[in-house]
Amino acid sequence: MKLIDGKAISAQIKAEIAQEVAEIKAAGGKTPHLVAVLVGTDGGSETYVANKVRTCEEVGFKSTLIRYDNDITEEELLACVDKLNKDSDVDGFIVQLPLPKHISEDKIIEAIDYRKDVDGFHPVNVGRMSLGMPCFLSATPSGIVELLKRYEIETSGKHCVVLGRSNIVGKPVASLLMQKGYPGDCTVTVCHSRTKNIKEICLEADIIIAALGVPEFLKGDMVKEGAVVIDVGTTRVPNAERKSGFKLTGDVAFDEVAPKCSYITPVPGGVGPMTIVSLMKNTLLAGKKAIYK
Amino acid sequence: MKLIDGKAISAQIKAEIAQEVAEIKAAGGKTPHLVAVLVGTDGGSETYVANKVRTCEEVGFKSTLIRYDNDITEEELLACVDKLNKDSDVDGFIVQLPLPKHISEDKIIEAIDYRKDVDGFHPVNVGRMSLGMPCFLSATPSGIVELLKRYEIETSGKHCVVLGRSNIVGKPVASLLMQKGYPGDCTVTVCHSRTKNIKEICLEADIIIAALGVPEFLKGDMVKEGAVVIDVGTTRVPNAERKSGFKLTGDVAFDEVAPKCSYITPVPGGVGPMTIVSLMKNTLLAGKKAIYK
Repeated sequence: MKLIDGKAISAQIKAEIAQEVAEIKAAGGKTPHLVAVLVGTDGGSETYVANKVRTCEEVGFKSTLIRYDNDITEEELLACVDKLNKDSDVDGFIVQLPLPKHISEDKIIEAIDYRKDVDGFHPVNVGRMSLGMPCFLSATPSGIVELLKRYEIETSGKHCVVLGRSNIVGKPVASLLMQKGYPGDCTVTVCHSRTKNIKEICLEADIIIAALGVPEFLKGDMVKEGAVVIDVGTTRVPNAERKSGFKLTGDVAFDEVAPKCSYITPVPGGVGPMTIVSLMKNTLLAGKKAIYK
Repeated sequence: MKLIDGKAISAQIKAEIAQEVAEIKAAGGKTPHLVAVLVGTDGGSETYVANKVRTCEEVGFKSTLIRYDNDITEEELLACVDKLNKDSDVDGFIVQLPLPKHISEDKIIEAIDYRKDVDGFHPVNVGRMSLGMPCFLSATPSGIVELLKRYEIETSGKHCVVLGRSNIVGKPVASLLMQKGYPGDCTVTVCHSRTKNIKEICLEADIIIAALGVPEFLKGDMVKEGAVVIDVGTTRVPNAERKSGFKLTGDVAFDEVAPKCSYITPVPGGVGPMTIVSLMKNTLLAGKKAIYK
């Protein structure tokens, strides 16, 4: 069993990005600029956004954090998006999700100029990904695929079972892994809450991507010997022994599953660190206008 | 075994559309207007476009056919697209594929205003479909799903195996069938040329959608008792006995497979007639501005 070290890989990629940014700056080019918009004071969102801003600093990007109170109107937030769309100093921006219930997330995402949509959530980027065209890849699926690449895990002809059909993980990672070429060419099965005999399906998988958000869903008896297991779950399970009051728990019963795997990601330290790095990669591409002019 | 009669269903839907168009006209509304652009003189394309124009007449749409020689430049075709985008009398239009090699199909498709993209090929429509948002559904996948609906075939929790990963059939039909709600909630497996043990995977399927373009690929011993089989293949296999010189052949070895099925589509007369009807449905939606303003 080999542990997939997302923390180490993400550090490596950050160093690669920092190197490229330094070269761009040395050549007199524009410093990539990421703007993060945070509405309200949700604990998870605060942490994610703080990490994104800190990572921008690490790789040499310019970053700006725009904060709004929970009671901002949809119109005000749309006006903010419009301003960022038009600001030529802003290469990419994200509006941290979830948003308060009185604001339509779909409406906000669609209002973002897809050429600055470094989260890869806009329909244009989702559609281009599905069609196999250059685009901003959604961060978590892109991070998963990058891990497979860096560990040189074979994907061609492998049966990949994706657990979960969310718009931000399940569907896009399934889409990426069925594309032609490496890392793709997988036979892909997408399972979800309505799936019957999920255990039998998992037992046939060469690669399992668990993204249901159900803590320790995948048990040892659901995984075949030698499988590759990627755990996308990050549920905060209450835990009195922790200072934070919770334990970050994946979708995989790690202790049971790990001994059977050829490769497995831990939680934390697996997919998590890759997500932010994917956002940085998109921001660099946006800064270089490598995908859209 | 029950034969899925695409011809009868498509006639029924055409009658429904014609009824609605008559009501729109009676109320003084605008007649939906579809424009088809045909480049060159490919036999298949000629037939398809002629059918589309004829079907427009049947349902009471206005239709216009624009023809270009094979040697039209990309710039000229883009100018045509631009003109149609701006023409407020045109509700929807299609550029018949394939195009000559010197013209980028991606470029042409992306140039079409997605609000008039009644083929559902533009990245915005592909992305919105994947995200489960209202959009113009790509015609063949939409026709397949409509057949399942009209025959009240259960899909929730069913294992659907899609053979083929093309941008116009395999990927979008997989995407539709994994969405929440009916007709969706399937566990979906996408197989393709790189898939190993395709026979074993097909044997587990409750629903098989064959869209590889390989005549009679799916044999009797690859299908379990009671399966639903949808045949999307339409290969022109040379046949001296036919007046046309060819026989339209599906991806399913019909004589072997049919006896095992609960439902099966024939070729021709199954999915084929549904494709044009889906285009008409999109055109009606475009005329009513039901999806985009």
